[in-house]
Amino acid sequence: MTGSLIDILRGAIGPDHVLAGGDLEAWERDRRSRARGRALAVVRPGSTADVAAVVRACAATGTAIVPQGGNTGLVLGSIPDDSGTRVVLSLSRMRAVREIDPANLTMTVEAGCVLHDVREAAAGAGLLFPLSLASEGSCTIGGNLATNAGGTQVLRYGNARELCLGLEVVTAAGDVWDGLSGLRKDNTGYDLRDLFVGSEGTLGVITAATLKLFPRPAATHTAWLAVPSMEQAVALLALAQRRLAGELSGFEVIGRHALSVVASQFPQLRIPIPAGDGDACCVLLEAGMNASGEHAEGRFQALLAAALEAGCATDAVMAANIAQARALWQVRDSISPAQAAEGLNIKHDIALPVSRIPDFVAACGARLEQAIPGVRLVIFGHLGDGNLHYNVQAPDGSDAAAFLHGQEAGVNAIVHDAVAARGGSIAAEHGIGSLKVDILPRYKPAVALGLMRAIKRALDPLDIMNPGRVLRP
Amino acid sequence: MTGSLIDILRGAIGPDHVLAGGDLEAWERDRRSRARGRALAVVRPGSTADVAAVVRACAATGTAIVPQGGNTGLVLGSIPDDSGTRVVLSLSRMRAVREIDPANLTMTVEAGCVLHDVREAAAGAGLLFPLSLASEGSCTIGGNLATNAGGTQVLRYGNARELCLGLEVVTAAGDVWDGLSGLRKDNTGYDLRDLFVGSEGTLGVITAATLKLFPRPAATHTAWLAVPSMEQAVALLALAQRRLAGELSGFEVIGRHALSVVASQFPQLRIPIPAGDGDACCVLLEAGMNASGEHAEGRFQALLAAALEAGCATDAVMAANIAQARALWQVRDSISPAQAAEGLNIKHDIALPVSRIPDFVAACGARLEQAIPGVRLVIFGHLGDGNLHYNVQAPDGSDAAAFLHGQEAGVNAIVHDAVAARGGSIAAEHGIGSLKVDILPRYKPAVALGLMRAIKRALDPLDIMNPGRVLRP
Repeated sequence: MTGSLIDILRGAIGPDHVLAGGDLEAWERDRRSRARGRALAVVRPGSTADVAAVVRACAATGTAIVPQGGNTGLVLGSIPDDSGTRVVLSLSRMRAVREIDPANLTMTVEAGCVLHDVREAAAGAGLLFPLSLASEGSCTIGGNLATNAGGTQVLRYGNARELCLGLEVVTAAGDVWDGLSGLRKDNTGYDLRDLFVGSEGTLGVITAATLKLFPRPAATHTAWLAVPSMEQAVALLALAQRRLAGELSGFEVIGRHALSVVASQFPQLRIPIPAGDGDACCVLLEAGMNASGEHAEGRFQALLAAALEAGCATDAVMAANIAQARALWQVRDSISPAQAAEGLNIKHDIALPVSRIPDFVAACGARLEQAIPGVRLVIFGHLGDGNLHYNVQAPDGSDAAAFLHGQEAGVNAIVHDAVAARGGSIAAEHGIGSLKVDILPRYKPAVALGLMRAIKRALDPLDIMNPGRVLRP
Repeated sequence: MTGSLIDILRGAIGPDHVLAGGDLEAWERDRRSRARGRALAVVRPGSTADVAAVVRACAATGTAIVPQGGNTGLVLGSIPDDSGTRVVLSLSRMRAVREIDPANLTMTVEAGCVLHDVREAAAGAGLLFPLSLASEGSCTIGGNLATNAGGTQVLRYGNARELCLGLEVVTAAGDVWDGLSGLRKDNTGYDLRDLFVGSEGTLGVITAATLKLFPRPAATHTAWLAVPSMEQAVALLALAQRRLAGELSGFEVIGRHALSVVASQFPQLRIPIPAGDGDACCVLLEAGMNASGEHAEGRFQALLAAALEAGCATDAVMAANIAQARALWQVRDSISPAQAAEGLNIKHDIALPVSRIPDFVAACGARLEQAIPGVRLVIFGHLGDGNLHYNVQAPDGSDAAAFLHGQEAGVNAIVHDAVAARGGSIAAEHGIGSLKVDILPRYKPAVALGLMRAIKRALDPLDIMNPGRVLRP
């Protein structure tokens, strides 16, 4: 039976593109090496018709399919389970840029396009595709859409969902839905596009997408501010939104301890302004101005002056050139590598209403300190989107592995309960995958889960699309 | 049986709020008086729990429900059919503003809030809720979301869908889904919100929503330009997008004949610059600047100068004050009333990729002229969104009623086929309702319709939610 499926797949898309029996670790292990599954086979279709043929063959044999882009996901959603019965469907060969339409400000790309290449293709047409995240050199646009990726430009341009106008999808029945559309307005029925976006491969396979493009900012200004409290960080955000409106493109908060982890792991990096003794955090603020020149620069400088005047910041520095701006971002981007170097910690990808963040940070920190005296909190993230990466590190001197093993479930419950109590989300931009599938029912209303299950059964009645991810059957 | 349902409804939400037997014309007839249905009853629940009780009672008896907001829809989606068996569920009593959270830039309102009141409540907090359309004095936010309304600010702020962060919905089973969320990022499962948005009451009843708010523009500038061709209108749009980026908030095109209809019906209105002999159209251009003052005004004036220099426009005038800006918008807003005064015409609400609009206008106009010599085209709309209102008027001197009766189906087919051939939509911002439900299968891929039907069956298995709208069973 298995033999015949693999033969059918080889016949359908060519023997070279169906890998079975050899070393499949690259597709079976997640990028952070937390888990490894086992695949029946890895198939690498080269076209939408190939994908449809693979899905039809799998549907005919009831074989589960795991769609995979760059396999950079953080919630174990793109690797197979360890049953050895699932087919990994890698989109990596489908990387064509099908069309760029500058007058419509759109481009149509295949799912396997690496995000960096999508951005470069847009830049080559003098335009901006704004989605930007740490793994952009290896993640794919199909994976970005399947997980509704966020990143550092969401404040101005939205998540992956908001950047997508149309999709091409192979359904769980192996049909091709051509929903590629460069339209800003289309009210001809239910929003299928946004249903597939963010569904993590559990409803169908995204094979191509039409994306929004934007004019490139005329000038980008970047600043680093020391901020006395999370309350003042929220006040600074409001000030920046009032003065810059849609030109505000980045607002990253970096907690005091996050900064000291970077400083100790990467002493060669220059921290522009360390958080002073009285400061709780720093903010990295970026604006993509609609006009260049002295006046735009003056508006940005005036914002910094107003922030100091209002007490939102105790100190501020503005990047004088692109190299200095890059250096500021390098500090921000070094937090995750510094954490990795420092050792294990318990990570959370949470979102809250911006107005609730100060209260959350105070209350959750106190609760954790009570439970684990000396606990260290690495807090950073996209404050402008209400999205924090809230990572919990063992007390100084304690064993990190034992901490992770013994405390992970308890720490997760404390953090996620505090998030839920304030109307927040336990999965802001990384998704559910298999990592959070079992805790989701604690935080998602039963009515919502019931609606999701009904949709899953309707669109994937055989339960072959990435089963057990996002939802348990 | 019917008697007992009405008794149950009266018991559930109070006898004063269940209208049956009297004059129900206000709920049975559409605002443009093209059709009148007949309702079993009109129910006016005062709370979400009331709505749930109504839906449960109707589900228990298999009674169809027609959710209704301000009943301003243009596609006959919010009135009952003529069977006299359906219950109209009016949300008009649910008009509370539940919360405004300025630090999070959100507000939570009930579905029956009139759009104008939503905008006023936001303005009262010093903020902007940007959705704006002709019927804002009587349409409700619930209806705006159920139909994914567009309007004049979509270019900058998006459709109703993009302005909504969370929903409260009563499902077809009478359960309450509390999906009210002020989060910019939430990847905890399928995008239920966007599935209900735009589903025209066929999947459940939207009872409340959390909406995005924005800082108000520091200054608004408005201009009127005479434009030689649709190609140059598209070039002008690109120029404005490059120079103003996200500050460009309105880009309305008004065709030559649309302008002459306004001039002849409302001679008291001053047309700022008539389209000259060589001009195809005029453009009303609006920018909501992030900064006020001379520099911002200078940037706007420089755009107009660049447009004249590049040949995108033959003449341009900038409003010197708010009264002049209002006068420009009044010309634009007078097109529909002028058309109504002029008599019947065949209307289309279409969208195209912006890049295909000149070709569409040329080809479709030629095809119509060939079919109906002397036909007059009233073309206007939101060019920045690729959305045209493309209305076909009888040749001068011919009988309008006979024209409508004899030519409507043929004209619709010519226009919609030309739209579809260029990747466009036959329902850009007004929806499908019952007006377009029978032509939709000609233009929507069968795979998409199949997915839509599967979702409808999954979420409304009894087919009681606005049956036969959007989709035939």
